[in-house]
Amino acid sequence: MGPIGVFDSGMGGLTVLRELHRRLPAEDLLYFGDTARVPYGTKGARTVREFALQDALFLRSRGVKMIVVACNTASAFAIDYLQEQLDVPVLGVIKPGVQAALEKTVGGNIGVIATRGTVSSNRYQELLIAEVGKDRVIAKECPLFVPLVEEGMTSGNVTDLVTADYLQSLKNNVDTLILGCTHYPLLKETIANFMGYDVKLVDSAEALAEAAASELGNKKESGNGEISFCLSDIPWKFREVGARFLGKPIDAVETVNLNELEREGILSIPRKEKA
Amino acid sequence: MGPIGVFDSGMGGLTVLRELHRRLPAEDLLYFGDTARVPYGTKGARTVREFALQDALFLRSRGVKMIVVACNTASAFAIDYLQEQLDVPVLGVIKPGVQAALEKTVGGNIGVIATRGTVSSNRYQELLIAEVGKDRVIAKECPLFVPLVEEGMTSGNVTDLVTADYLQSLKNNVDTLILGCTHYPLLKETIANFMGYDVKLVDSAEALAEAAASELGNKKESGNGEISFCLSDIPWKFREVGARFLGKPIDAVETVNLNELEREGILSIPRKEKA
Repeated sequence: MGPIGVFDSGMGGLTVLRELHRRLPAEDLLYFGDTARVPYGTKGARTVREFALQDALFLRSRGVKMIVVACNTASAFAIDYLQEQLDVPVLGVIKPGVQAALEKTVGGNIGVIATRGTVSSNRYQELLIAEVGKDRVIAKECPLFVPLVEEGMTSGNVTDLVTADYLQSLKNNVDTLILGCTHYPLLKETIANFMGYDVKLVDSAEALAEAAASELGNKKESGNGEISFCLSDIPWKFREVGARFLGKPIDAVETVNLNELEREGILSIPRKEKA
Repeated sequence: MGPIGVFDSGMGGLTVLRELHRRLPAEDLLYFGDTARVPYGTKGARTVREFALQDALFLRSRGVKMIVVACNTASAFAIDYLQEQLDVPVLGVIKPGVQAALEKTVGGNIGVIATRGTVSSNRYQELLIAEVGKDRVIAKECPLFVPLVEEGMTSGNVTDLVTADYLQSLKNNVDTLILGCTHYPLLKETIANFMGYDVKLVDSAEALAEAAASELGNKKESGNGEISFCLSDIPWKFREVGARFLGKPIDAVETVNLNELEREGILSIPRKEKA
């Protein structure tokens, strides 16, 4: 029972929400974007883990039956921790992305681009190297991609220059490239244009939606396909930016103050009972 | 008694700390950078006000005798609120910056560049317009400048392109330009190169240090010139980045968890008694 909860550091996870809604149209979805503390990708493991737990506990306090971590950095640093702490299934974005890349690759040469945090965690690299070997995996952090996307600069001179700089070492060396940050699908055209259109771009959102469906299994879909939005800060042009990520307009948004909920003890209740 | 407290959303305020130390070499200084929640410049007034109060209360819990808000966005949204809530003097960065610009300008045409938050608050514009009139003030937000500086990209093709794009409307229209964000002084060369070296660039740090000195008045300087650093997250290459802002190496840093302090009630004590 209850909706599926989805959280991200900000608006990027809406690309995941869109795929979930497409794949599971009858499920109710509750989205939380931690826009007050965005970004996570530039921050340390301990900080991201703490923030991710608060985000997940907020969703749990709203009665979600499953939690989807739509943020790559939070998945990289916190997925095991969240699975340990929460009493509902918690799905991350990394394993499905790796799975999808392994299915798509022809030559077995796979690249992954992500935030500094995600790359430094080594999660993508470990999973990929276990399958294709060390010399066939290239990881590269692309720290300016998030601000560029948030500014709506998904094409143009500046973005082309930054893209060429970041992806130079990957060009002609991989046949498949994982877009390891929920912001990056909005740069698909620019990236494809530089890498060549024969390089397969893997957007984990689709694979994650598939994983969520299989986790639900045969359980009948339980909702009316309603989507609700919660944000910890109302960002600049959030309707415009949100619609760009989600692929359709956003109506009502609820503002959530995590500090207040923390003070009221609402973020510390429904953790898993220790065995 | 006690050190002077200085806070910023992240590392940018170190440019202010440096000037304070230069102007008041015998004062002890305690710096807090809210690196876990940086940036503030893209976030809403309510969020920034709440974060700024926590930052100030943290410094107050460490016994500071004065608080310097080294962040322009926090100054823009929260300075009156902080002055109301705290029981020690609170100085912001905006009034000193405006004062310095008015002293430097020759023709009375003044520009200000800042974060989206600071520009949207209208604080700089209101103060400037009251002195030189509406048609002589141009404000422009430069959202990519902060990530560029944090990436160490203070020069080069990308930064030149972004600078030209942002500053086009200011070029040849102002004789004085306020760098209304503590990150921007690191772009001085690039900005001067585009604007022309005859345009006066105002970095508020110096003016703010002067204001702090005059607030202290004749009170004898009370410390040994010690500087302590607290951050809410240890960012990537923080020693390197920090040294760039501060102008000298940073030794020990203490990590501060504001959520924990909030839960322990440490951030709610020493507010000003109501009259």
